[in-house]
Formats: sequence, C-alpha cells, structure tokens
Amino acid sequence: MNAYIVTVGDELVTGFVTDTNSAYLAGKLADIGITVSRKVSVRDRAEEIAAEMDAALEAADLVFVTGGLGPTRDDCTKRAVCESFGVKLVESPDILRRVRERYESRGMEMPEVSRSLALVPETAQLLPNPLGSAVGLKMTRGRRFLYVLPGVPGEMRAIFEGSIETGLRELDGRAYIKMKVLRTTGLSESDIAAKIEPVADGLGVSLGYLPSATGVVLRLTAMGDSEAAAGRELGRATAIIRTVLGNRLYSEDGQELHFVVGNMLIETQTTISVAESCTGGLVGHLLTEVPGISSRFMEGITAYSDRSKISHLGVSPDAIASFGAVSEQVARAMAVGVRQRAHTDIGLSTTGIAGPTGGTGEKPVGLVYTGIAHEDGCEVKRNVFAGTRGVIKVRAATHALDLVRIHLLSVAT
Amino acid sequence: MNAYIVTVGDELVTGFVTDTNSAYLAGKLADIGITVSRKVSVRDRAEEIAAEMDAALEAADLVFVTGGLGPTRDDCTKRAVCESFGVKLVESPDILRRVRERYESRGMEMPEVSRSLALVPETAQLLPNPLGSAVGLKMTRGRRFLYVLPGVPGEMRAIFEGSIETGLRELDGRAYIKMKVLRTTGLSESDIAAKIEPVADGLGVSLGYLPSATGVVLRLTAMGDSEAAAGRELGRATAIIRTVLGNRLYSEDGQELHFVVGNMLIETQTTISVAESCTGGLVGHLLTEVPGISSRFMEGITAYSDRSKISHLGVSPDAIASFGAVSEQVARAMAVGVRQRAHTDIGLSTTGIAGPTGGTGEKPVGLVYTGIAHEDGCEVKRNVFAGTRGVIKVRAATHALDLVRIHLLSVAT
Repeated sequence: MNAYIVTVGDELVTGFVTDTNSAYLAGKLADIGITVSRKVSVRDRAEEIAAEMDAALEAADLVFVTGGLGPTRDDCTKRAVCESFGVKLVESPDILRRVRERYESRGMEMPEVSRSLALVPETAQLLPNPLGSAVGLKMTRGRRFLYVLPGVPGEMRAIFEGSIETGLRELDGRAYIKMKVLRTTGLSESDIAAKIEPVADGLGVSLGYLPSATGVVLRLTAMGDSEAAAGRELGRATAIIRTVLGNRLYSEDGQELHFVVGNMLIETQTTISVAESCTGGLVGHLLTEVPGISSRFMEGITAYSDRSKISHLGVSPDAIASFGAVSEQVARAMAVGVRQRAHTDIGLSTTGIAGPTGGTGEKPVGLVYTGIAHEDGCEVKRNVFAGTRGVIKVRAATHALDLVRIHLLSVAT
Repeated sequence: MNAYIVTVGDELVTGFVTDTNSAYLAGKLADIGITVSRKVSVRDRAEEIAAEMDAALEAADLVFVTGGLGPTRDDCTKRAVCESFGVKLVESPDILRRVRERYESRGMEMPEVSRSLALVPETAQLLPNPLGSAVGLKMTRGRRFLYVLPGVPGEMRAIFEGSIETGLRELDGRAYIKMKVLRTTGLSESDIAAKIEPVADGLGVSLGYLPSATGVVLRLTAMGDSEAAAGRELGRATAIIRTVLGNRLYSEDGQELHFVVGNMLIETQTTISVAESCTGGLVGHLLTEVPGISSRFMEGITAYSDRSKISHLGVSPDAIASFGAVSEQVARAMAVGVRQRAHTDIGLSTTGIAGPTGGTGEKPVGLVYTGIAHEDGCEVKRNVFAGTRGVIKVRAATHALDLVRIHLLSVAT
C-alpha cells in the first residue's frame, strides 16, 4: 500500500517556505505500515492541482493533499477537487455557523471573505478541524482515497489524528516498516559514526545520520513480516547502539533534549533556576516549552549586563574585573548565585561570546562557559562552539541542558 | 519558459531531511526569468527517477535533477538517465584520473567503490565539479534540457554557477519575475484579506498569503518586460498595501519582527529590559538573536514563580493575592519594576497562561497580559491567544515585541 503526498502553494514550489507537513505525514504513515513513495509540490492553480490529483490517484492507493484551503483568492484546492471529481462546491450551513461563531466569540463580525471557508465539494466527507475554520475533506475514487488537509501544521495534525489515523490502521495491504529515531548530543557525526560503524553490519536495520546544532539524530528503519517482527529488529539494533553510545544517547522515542530534561525535573521533583548571559533566555524558553514545568522552573535571570550579573546574581564586581564576564569564575558565581537566591535544587548558568563580533585571540567568538550548581558543589565546562550567532546560542543552551541531564542521571544511580 | 525540479533521495520523500537545493535553484532561476512550476521528490530507484525525467521533459522546457550521483549503491540517478535516454554508461578516463588524484593527494588509495564516479551516460555533456568528485551532466532532448547535479548543496551551487547560469541567461522566452516579501503582525489572514481584497485588482502583481504564529507574510510576484519594469510593479503594489495595512506592515525587506525591533532599539539608542512569565525567556531569546543588541538589552527576568516576581521585580504580594499572577495589575507592576531596577528606557512584561492546563472560566488558557513601561507611563494589553503551549508563547512574545515597535514609532514621530 503506497501513498503520494501533494503539497500546494507557490511558496513550497519555490522553496520559500519549508514544508514540515510531509515529514509529519510520512512518519505517521510509516508507523501505520504505509510507504510514501513520492512527494510533489504544485503551485496555487486549480488546474495544476487537479491534474496532480488525477495522476496521483492513478498511481497511489492514498493521496494526501495539504494546503490551499484558506479563505483568500490564492486558496484553490477545493476548486481543484471539484475539477478532478466533476462535482460542485456547495455551502455548508454548519461550517458557516461555526466560522461566524468563531468571530462572534471574539466580539467581531465575520468578514465576507471568510464565507468561502463554508464552501465544500458536494460529495466530500468532511473531517472536522478542532483548531481552525478550514475543514478537512475525504474523497473516494474506486478503492482509492484522497485526503485534503489545511496547510497550517497544527490543524493538519489535529485532523489527521482525529479523523484519519484510526481508519488507516484498518486498511489491508500494509507493509510492516517501522522507524525509530534516536537522539544524541555532544558528539559530531564522525564521532558517532566511528563508534557505530564497527557494529553496523550486525544492526540488521537501515541507518541514517542527521546532524544538527543540538546533536546527531539517528534514524533506524526496519522491515518485517509483521509489525512485531519489525519492532523486534528495531529493539535489537537500539540495544546495540545504546551500548556503543552510552549516555550520549538521550532519547529513544524522538523526544527532544529540553523535553527529556524538563520531564526528568518534573519526575524527580527537582527545582531549577537559570542564569543566562550569551544564551539570552533560550535555556528558559526551552525548559518552559514543557507542560507542567511551572512547578519546577522557578526563575531565569538573563543577566546580559555586568550590572545585572552583580545585582540579581551576586556576582562580585571584582570577579568580573579580574577575569572578565566570560570566565569560569563568573559562570560559577552565576550558577551558585541564582541557585541560592531562587532557593532551587539546581542553578544553571551560561556566559560566552555569541558573536559575530566581540571575540579576541584569548576569548574567541563561540567561547562559552556553562555552570551547574547543586547541593554537592558546582561544575563549570568550557567549550568553543562553531557557527553563527544563532547556532552558538543553540549549542550553548543544548550543552547547558545536557549538564542537567547528566547530573540527574548521576543522582539517580 | 518554465522549469521543473526533481530531487532524488528516500530521505527527501519522507521529509526526514530538508531539501535546500530547490529553494536555491528556484531563486536563481527566478532572477534569470525562468519560472519553477513544480517540484517533485522521488526515491532512490532508477526506474522511478527515469519515469519522472520522461514526464518532466514532456511538460517543462528545463528539468533540474539533484541527488543520487554519489558512489554508493543507493545512488542511481545516472542509471536513470541512461534508461530515460536509451544510452549506455561509459567510463571517463579523465574523471577516473581526477578521482584517483583526489585520494592520492590525501595519501590514500582510491577505494574500488569510487570507480563508479567515473561512469557517465555516453551522450552526456559533462559539467565540471570544482568541489567534489561527482560531475554534473547536461542532456538534450529536442529543444529541452535536463541538468543533473549532485545533492551536496555546495557542489550543486558551484556547478550551477560555473557551467549553467551563463547559458540560461542567453535563452529566449524568459519572463522577468521579481518577488518581494512583506511581513505583517497582529491581524489574521482573513483580516488582512478583508483590507487588501477591495484593492487587489489594482495591485497588478500576484499575491500569496502565508499565515504563521508571528503574523501573516505576504508574497508579491511581479512580471515585466524587463527587470526594472517588474521592480516598478512591485513598488507600486507595495505602496498600495502599505496604505491599507498601515502600521500592521512592519517589514518590506523580509526582516523578521525581532530583528526589526532589535535594530530599532540599536538605532534609536533605546535600552530595554524584559520581565517574562508565560513566555519563559522567549522574548529575551529573540531580542538576543540580533547582533549588537548587547549594548541595548540589559536584562531579562523570567519570573515564573510568585516569589521571583516579588523579589526581582518588586511586584507587591498583595497585587498577586488580590488579582492573581495573571492580571493587568501584575503585568503593569512587572513592566514598571523591571524598567526601574534595570534603569532602562523601556520595561516589557508578559504574564499569562500558556497551557495546556491551568485555565479557568474567567482566565482561560491563552490569556496573556503584555505590558510596556516607558518614561510616559505604562500600557497593558489583554489578549486571548489560540493554539498549543508553544504557539501561545510565540504569539505572546510577538505581541510584546510589537508593543515596543509601536512605541518606538510613536516616539519617532
């Protein structure tokens, strides 16, 4: 059973906007046992979209189309569906009422342009959108299905998970392919490869490396006669990789580092405060992405100025004068200071030179000290990170979060 | 004159790796006056790639294929070329010599697998690769051309710029296309459309709407008989849109809001401090993405706990007890408090409920107060933002930054 993905939008054809929907869909479909064999991006032109729908329904069992469902004149996917299926657009009173209510609940009147959100192909099965006004559509041609979803990622996902996923799991003819994502941090792609290559032949799965500023992601793909068999292959390969990578492997379920660390803090009831300089609030931002963290994350001080380091964190002016704001001593004083003043179990700090200017021979752009204070003392690490200002911030924040992870692991054992 | 782009690779079909080559090619081709009308990603299978080449050469004047030229067994684009054109692979002694020299210059022997880099379709015109071993290929079918380029972005670009670009500029039938990006914030896609639609027919350019959590991006595309004519069309359309959108339009050069605001702070020598609650450090993180901001951004206090709001920002415990931490009064006290204590021109604050839990009937998830304190006083705005925790944080941070922009605009006039 194979699927095609068609993404609609001038901005996708030209690469102006990065499409994240197809990665989500391909991942979900792979889990269900459906292979995505082709991805096409077409412009906002009804006739081109309709031609693509026809071609895709010739070649694939399932076709997923995303985008072009909004209320403006460049949104023409519904017209394309009508062209491809030879049906008319009709106004759905239900949808119209809901769109109008959305505006009224905000004390506003519905603009006339939004009325087009209620137009749907007459034979479409409607897939409710819990997060927005553009409903999803399901069309049937013989034994093949066309799903049309909005381009807004959150809405697309909500419709897929709410109205499509369960039905797909009941289809026949699925191949059992399972994918697993392992996340690592603190080692380069070459370092990871040097550890894995000696055991690669015994893995029995296909392995992809994806380096990024937060670390190297490994993607394992296994095939089997059944879902369970493919799952066993993945489990065996994961165990081998876990052995060679040790604690550099931090996630086996796709969860990103800040979620792993945030959830460890929540589960171990460990409170944390953060004193940031070069990361500018990024560490706090990442930790506060985690639902439920408010009971553990007490405060973040982004002490960009010396004055702020002194007044909020108790860093001594002498230390700044003698060693500089970017120094092991100041990183230590920041971590210890924020921990004491916020009365938390852990105090975390960053101070460095994110660039693009401000580096010197002795203290180059990319130099970052990260500190972690806890009841047994305080450790400070020195790194020189490569990359742009934005990348250096990400690498520094990642390293700081990883210090928390390693500390919590050591406390737990 | 139109072009198709075909990208080759399992990892692109599944979206596991983001394709940057097509954005580069589409941008370059647009500058030359060639429209990219379709983008396809296919798997590493010679027969699927060949079928795609045939279909593309039916429909487009130019076809660009990237990827699948490497030496490993999953690289099969050259075999696909042979299949599509009915020709054979032959070994090029020139290329073989160069590949061998590359290894020898590093003191290594050429591995046998690399010999396949010297195999090329017998009728191909070879396009030298100054950065690597995989050469580019040009194939001709009637008056149409197929260009095959390596997937490694740097090598692809080097070949395009070295061996392809100049020739394309001599082709007939090009249209002069120019694009411009306008960024807005604070209005929904429908709201923006309601303002623009009445004047849309007079714009004379094609208009795309791209909604996101930070606002709606408008993309204008103009065609003309010359580059200058297309540029004039864009200028005229921009002036019309500027009139109907007023200060909701914040960027005409693609610059994102935090860069616009950061650069305004730098240029007007205005200092700022930030007191964040629900945004968790995101406002500070965004401002500190801007090079040179360290002379203006003094500190950020992420006061997640009540205690932190009281001790670092001077919020009165009574205000928190009477009105709650998420209230107009506390937002005001935070903005005023951080401004006073950090001795900055502007104090900015956020307090709200990012969810997914913690909402009540009176104070729902998404309720956010944003405050801005300056020498003339303090304003607080109340919003209820829709979306996930992450999206609510982004909307709140965007709104806070926009308050700074509007304030700086009002001071300037």
